Amino acid sequence: MRISELDTPVAIVDLERLEANIARLQSYLDAHGIANRPHIKTHKIPAIAQMQVKAGAIGVTCQKLGEAEVMADAGLSDIFLPYNILGPAKLQRLIALMRRVTLSVTVDSEVTARALSSAVSQSDAPAPLDVLVEFDTGMGRCGAQSPGEAADLARLIARLPGLRFGGLMTYPYNEHTQSFVEATRAWLKPEGLSVARVSAGGTPQMWRAHTCPAITEYRAGMYVYGDRYTLQSGAMTLDDCALKVITTVVSRPTVARGILDAGSKVFSSDTLGLDGYGLILEYPEARFYGQSEEHGHVDFSACARKPEIGERVTVIPNHCCPVSNLFDQMVGVRGDQVEGVWQIAARGRVQ
Amino acid sequence: MRISELDTPVAIVDLERLEANIARLQSYLDAHGIANRPHIKTHKIPAIAQMQVKAGAIGVTCQKLGEAEVMADAGLSDIFLPYNILGPAKLQRLIALMRRVTLSVTVDSEVTARALSSAVSQSDAPAPLDVLVEFDTGMGRCGAQSPGEAADLARLIARLPGLRFGGLMTYPYNEHTQSFVEATRAWLKPEGLSVARVSAGGTPQMWRAHTCPAITEYRAGMYVYGDRYTLQSGAMTLDDCALKVITTVVSRPTVARGILDAGSKVFSSDTLGLDGYGLILEYPEARFYGQSEEHGHVDFSACARKPEIGERVTVIPNHCCPVSNLFDQMVGVRGDQVEGVWQIAARGRVQ
Repeated sequence: MRISELDTPVAIVDLERLEANIARLQSYLDAHGIANRPHIKTHKIPAIAQMQVKAGAIGVTCQKLGEAEVMADAGLSDIFLPYNILGPAKLQRLIALMRRVTLSVTVDSEVTARALSSAVSQSDAPAPLDVLVEFDTGMGRCGAQSPGEAADLARLIARLPGLRFGGLMTYPYNEHTQSFVEATRAWLKPEGLSVARVSAGGTPQMWRAHTCPAITEYRAGMYVYGDRYTLQSGAMTLDDCALKVITTVVSRPTVARGILDAGSKVFSSDTLGLDGYGLILEYPEARFYGQSEEHGHVDFSACARKPEIGERVTVIPNHCCPVSNLFDQMVGVRGDQVEGVWQIAARGRVQ
Repeated sequence: MRISELDTPVAIVDLERLEANIARLQSYLDAHGIANRPHIKTHKIPAIAQMQVKAGAIGVTCQKLGEAEVMADAGLSDIFLPYNILGPAKLQRLIALMRRVTLSVTVDSEVTARALSSAVSQSDAPAPLDVLVEFDTGMGRCGAQSPGEAADLARLIARLPGLRFGGLMTYPYNEHTQSFVEATRAWLKPEGLSVARVSAGGTPQMWRAHTCPAITEYRAGMYVYGDRYTLQSGAMTLDDCALKVITTVVSRPTVARGILDAGSKVFSSDTLGLDGYGLILEYPEARFYGQSEEHGHVDFSACARKPEIGERVTVIPNHCCPVSNLFDQMVGVRGDQVEGVWQIAARGRVQ
């Protein structure tokens, strides 16, 4: 089947570009002695996770337990879950997962660390569980706010039954990351506590990971697909973009306006600070200025030629990750041929 | 099972409020002689569509063929698809659907009308297909731009084989809707073409539908659940809101900041012009100011008491429709008891 025979809207992945993106980041990280632990939240597809591991990744990163369970079911054997796992139901699932894969998690509070310890030490899971301390050097999300706070948590983890202090984790890394890690190491060294892993992430800044020598492992997600945000960051070129959404122009109510058969239910409403909702490859001057759930609102006034009703156009979305979470299937293509269809097995795993 | 035993994040629907919302709009529309044709895009659940029909709705509205197919599978027998259906694959599915249910669609161009006619007249479907003309009195999405243009399309539909001119459709209606319909009627009357249906929609303005006497049928979607946007519009009160998302505070990295275990993968990034991403019922002064895919970023600085790590909080989302599209299941509750779980059967039907 050819791409042109697929009905729209449809999400396609160029397999050649996908393979090249996977190989390129692996080479870069290998060259700098940084372990690769890609984030599967972008694709949510076990087969792509397996491609990443086959290319040299030491394991994968998942953001939710439900995603980790899907990856474990598919045979992925080393999973990092950089999230505070809380509550009896999730702790029970965590224990079950520990029996199946090499698991590591993060905490940023005493409450979470103590609950993990209690759950693990009262179970027959293969303890200890590697627990990293999340720290924050600018994002303002989770994470210890100072090296002293991170060191306190590291000490607590090290002495809690069932747990092992596994290192430090942050997202994204920045110019403060190196000094934060060094200061935390300095606090812990006298007590004989070493920081085995320093895990950082982020696709926009991936090619500079080596400039922060503290980093021992890297979690990138979007690098497999690319999107308009990654393009703007300069980390990828248009030619690297593997994920596209093909849509149809279903209405041309005015000379300037065109309406696509895909809106926020396909692209999400993520702007990531960009103007508009996607780049239309056939009409790069067009402005994808608005969305309803099932309609994309495009201004074609700057385009010399304007599309006809029924014409198909190809969109690079602002943010590739939510697109994976909105479709049930991803179509793999090579050249203009469809090679196969993947179920997006870990989509919608909110718990 | 009690609500408090459900793991988070979880979407719940208060069945008592849902039933009351369905009954209330039905009574209002009945009192004004307006047919009720609720939009299922909000809930995407056949059982709720059946509740709406049982309460008196003449049929349902779907935005995509895939949604209509799910509703037809569940026994819904009268479906309105106010969308330009284009392309051979979709036209084939449309024909298949015509054999199963009473179907009506819209067009806003000659291209779409001719393609529908060609597909229907070359099939053995029970023709004619009712085709309404979409018109635009302000939204700037699809739709004929003037009464003259709408009348031209009506005439074309009336003479194309396999089609019947079914009336006019707009979204949302406003102060220009009445005069647009009257002008279109005036164009068509000398030719003996009557406007059988005038279909309008929108939850925020639903209680004023009777002030636009041209309207013969109403499509509201969000009225079943309610959300922060509907609250702000004044069409529903907090007490009417049936849909809630229960989340857990997983991190309290600073005195002011709390992080929820749900972000844009649960709430979507829709702001609908509102500040922030949801109303936290237990902490109405809190500001849900940011989201990552799996984290909600909340500023609790204005709250006298601040939540502990592990505490559950209940969120009214900005926009209920995308929440239905992000979860796989919706939990029906009555009081503090779980009454059942619905699969959101029509979620993700992008085609």
